[in-house]
Amino acid sequence: MDNKPVPDIVVGRLPIYLRALTFLKTEHREITSSQELGDRLGISSAQIRKDLSHFGEFGKQGTGYDIRHLEANLKQILHVDRMWDVVLIGAGDLGHALANYRGFAGRGFHIAAVFDKSGDKIGREIVEGLVVEDVVTLSERVKQVGWKMAIIAVPAEEAQPVANTLMEAGVKALLNYAPISLMVPSGIRVEHIDPAVHLQHLTYYLG
Amino acid sequence: MDNKPVPDIVVGRLPIYLRALTFLKTEHREITSSQELGDRLGISSAQIRKDLSHFGEFGKQGTGYDIRHLEANLKQILHVDRMWDVVLIGAGDLGHALANYRGFAGRGFHIAAVFDKSGDKIGREIVEGLVVEDVVTLSERVKQVGWKMAIIAVPAEEAQPVANTLMEAGVKALLNYAPISLMVPSGIRVEHIDPAVHLQHLTYYLG
Repeated sequence: MDNKPVPDIVVGRLPIYLRALTFLKTEHREITSSQELGDRLGISSAQIRKDLSHFGEFGKQGTGYDIRHLEANLKQILHVDRMWDVVLIGAGDLGHALANYRGFAGRGFHIAAVFDKSGDKIGREIVEGLVVEDVVTLSERVKQVGWKMAIIAVPAEEAQPVANTLMEAGVKALLNYAPISLMVPSGIRVEHIDPAVHLQHLTYYLG
Repeated sequence: MDNKPVPDIVVGRLPIYLRALTFLKTEHREITSSQELGDRLGISSAQIRKDLSHFGEFGKQGTGYDIRHLEANLKQILHVDRMWDVVLIGAGDLGHALANYRGFAGRGFHIAAVFDKSGDKIGREIVEGLVVEDVVTLSERVKQVGWKMAIIAVPAEEAQPVANTLMEAGVKALLNYAPISLMVPSGIRVEHIDPAVHLQHLTYYLG
């Protein structure tokens, strides 16, 4: 553990370790090892130990990791020991899928509001208790409520303007599903979800 | 360049480099550098040079990378210098979004068939020319056509049985959207798309 910033690539693996630990807990397991985690995740055990060593001393030689303890620590490191409200932009097919996604519950996230530009969608309930709002009110609403995270699920040509509106209104972190690379100033974090990237990762091995 | 297998983590970055190169080409650029790519992608230039060095000598000191040349090489390395048929399981909101996703075209992938178990969906056209088929015929159809890749967009509790059917029928690579970790034998590749993982990566920085 030192004071240098942890490489982003290491940070990106922590949620994957956290997911694996949570899964092991559902199997009523109490202890695991970097070897077992590595086998499950396709990451070397040495890499896992090195990644975790940036944040402290979590395992003991020969006894492994206490699953609950490491899980709690990772939640704290990733700041998901609390709930985050997330704004969703886009109430199309993908927006519906995300609003209904059961993988957010228990992992720190709650879809707090949904916006769309289409008159067909505005005013409709996308899931129980969540009514689609008009995207023209997005900036005002974000400023008023102070949301810091957003998911962009709009067509490619609308993604950058929507991102600009969000950032101007104070959003600091974007998860982008549109098939373009968003340009953002420093200080703003973006993650892209791009299924073609994952499929290309797979075809490498298919030859 | 040596004969050791390239680390999977390096392989996983190649599609991201490829996407950035394709984007630069749309800006009519001809030459780039590891520094520029790194700045755009939030990866160090040293990492990019090291990653690419696994596959050959693509840049020259002081002149950088020829964008078209490197792009063509990465397509070949990732085996997306050809088109891959992909089977989609699940014709719900997410399945609709994927069937309509415009980010596959030009990147090596084509949704060749869609399956669902719901009588409401079977027989309907999900996009032009693509009719939802009954999942009970999945195994037979996969064996008959010889599809090697599939996208799983079904609810969590159905994902493992669907994956098992696909693998038994000869599918070698799975892209899973369900919020569970699929168990697969060695020799089968899986990628998970999990928005909570990306959101947790973001909250690390929000603190």
